Amino acid sequence: MQNKEGVRAVMIGGGTGSFTILSELKHHVQNITSIVNMVDDGGSTGVLRDELGVLPPGDIRQCLVALSNCPDIWRQLFNYRYPNGSFEKHAFGNLFLSTLEKITGSFADAVSVAEKLLDTTGRVLPVTLDNITLCLQLSNGKILKGEHTITQSFFNQEREYRLFLEPKGTLNPAILEVIANADIIVIGPGNLFSSLIPTLLVDNFGQIIKASKAKKIYICNLVTKPGQTDGFKVHDFVNKIAEYIGENWCDFVLYNTERPPVELLEKYAKKDEQWVEYDENILNTMRYTSLGIKLISEHIHIQDPNDKLITRTLIRHNAYKVSRAIMRVHYFDEE
Amino acid sequence: MQNKEGVRAVMIGGGTGSFTILSELKHHVQNITSIVNMVDDGGSTGVLRDELGVLPPGDIRQCLVALSNCPDIWRQLFNYRYPNGSFEKHAFGNLFLSTLEKITGSFADAVSVAEKLLDTTGRVLPVTLDNITLCLQLSNGKILKGEHTITQSFFNQEREYRLFLEPKGTLNPAILEVIANADIIVIGPGNLFSSLIPTLLVDNFGQIIKASKAKKIYICNLVTKPGQTDGFKVHDFVNKIAEYIGENWCDFVLYNTERPPVELLEKYAKKDEQWVEYDENILNTMRYTSLGIKLISEHIHIQDPNDKLITRTLIRHNAYKVSRAIMRVHYFDEE
Repeated sequence: MQNKEGVRAVMIGGGTGSFTILSELKHHVQNITSIVNMVDDGGSTGVLRDELGVLPPGDIRQCLVALSNCPDIWRQLFNYRYPNGSFEKHAFGNLFLSTLEKITGSFADAVSVAEKLLDTTGRVLPVTLDNITLCLQLSNGKILKGEHTITQSFFNQEREYRLFLEPKGTLNPAILEVIANADIIVIGPGNLFSSLIPTLLVDNFGQIIKASKAKKIYICNLVTKPGQTDGFKVHDFVNKIAEYIGENWCDFVLYNTERPPVELLEKYAKKDEQWVEYDENILNTMRYTSLGIKLISEHIHIQDPNDKLITRTLIRHNAYKVSRAIMRVHYFDEE
Repeated sequence: MQNKEGVRAVMIGGGTGSFTILSELKHHVQNITSIVNMVDDGGSTGVLRDELGVLPPGDIRQCLVALSNCPDIWRQLFNYRYPNGSFEKHAFGNLFLSTLEKITGSFADAVSVAEKLLDTTGRVLPVTLDNITLCLQLSNGKILKGEHTITQSFFNQEREYRLFLEPKGTLNPAILEVIANADIIVIGPGNLFSSLIPTLLVDNFGQIIKASKAKKIYICNLVTKPGQTDGFKVHDFVNKIAEYIGENWCDFVLYNTERPPVELLEKYAKKDEQWVEYDENILNTMRYTSLGIKLISEHIHIQDPNDKLITRTLIRHNAYKVSRAIMRVHYFDEE
């Protein structure tokens, strides 16, 4: 189903940053596929997995909404969270996907139905259709199980730690053709340990990406995650992924060079989150092309739980700038 | 939005019988509107009303599904009931309607969106958009409140009892034009005290129907409801409605003349449900035209909670025969 004309992009991310970039990038390419991690087991998604025995719908839902061209009401409906009662905190779109999965017996079919309903640009593909669990082995041999548990854990002081999947899962068969035809593969932004590495660990997906002829761009996070990536600079993020799939896994590293205002840094510091700094000397010694650009959004609009749009000052990627940078990379060596 | 050509039918019912007739009748008329009672407060609907403060979605959902021309998966989705967990017994379609109502702030808008999604033939209109409660005053002055409570009550031994709404509600403004343009108004089958009379009691809807130039057909129930219509014959059903909206409220009474097999009658008798008998002598003295026909379905297919189609022998209306009888009435005096 690949469009043989135009730019074919693949996006692998996780979290708000990647969803907003997805919703902008779709306007710049002719063909876009979002490949989504399947380890989420917290919140609404976790309850649905436990109670209905379904695959995790949460990140899939957010990608579907990001790629949707539907009237706004459908996006609002999919992202609607119940304020109270039996359904408290559940997102309606999660229920939609899980219920369709129960009826059709196939999560892939459920996602396809939702793609049509939401009139998405491009496709959203779960990285695997197997029921997998994220695990983290610590120095003392102890194994933490489950994405939600691992996300809340502090392990940056561990002598060594290693993520793995149980089971490793089989790559969603629809992905091979998408990667084979891709012009550009965007990895990140997203949490290293709960989104990006868990996606790359499925089957031999990391190796397939490395072997792809597409340009591979890593978009580095803007802030660190307490107890996990504290003190990480841009090159540490790249190297951490390399620990799992080997060196030279990307061609370009896109990172932010704009230090956020002090007030904002202080606000984040209270939650032990730090701005991700960069070391140009180290970056210059590495095999990939590094692109430092001011990438921070001025103000962002978010939806509060009561579904009103509010303006917040947060450290977030400017999706427009990021998308332009991605396209610049795409056209880089064609001049 | 009325189609000026062809047959314009309105259906006022409640319960499985009326939903299956609706799904057949849509093939015989060019324009159909289902007008739905708004007093349901039990089960999934009751929880949603309590927790989210919404109008009752359950009967609306069933009418939407009955009128839907969508692929079967959408009908399955709307009628899907969760087998366990936080959502146990909720129908997905109820959640869909209630969530849209929360987002749009309008139940009417929510129903319109669902009509488009499900590609319904015709329209489904809540009889009122006000939050109303069904009440029942007993001989001793005691008042039972709520449809669910009243449905489970035994009051056939009361010296007198009277249903009323609190508040009376304002008729959904979209209904006036529909009734003004209707060729035929079908009332029933449906529970007298929890569906039909509560619909007719809204505002002055019963009077508006009586004053309409359309042919009005009452379709009598097949079995009695224990503690409520025990011993009722066909004319008792008609007269009970007349107590609320006055004599001569319908032009035709369609009733079943086929006594179900003894095994089935015995099965129903265990639940104190009896076949509704008819007294031709009394019927012949009344002002309406009575039509006694064999209307019982041979076997019926129903969906079990795990969503498998199963065949059951139950006393149910044969929707095809009922629809043909309705059309015969429509063309009755045009020969």
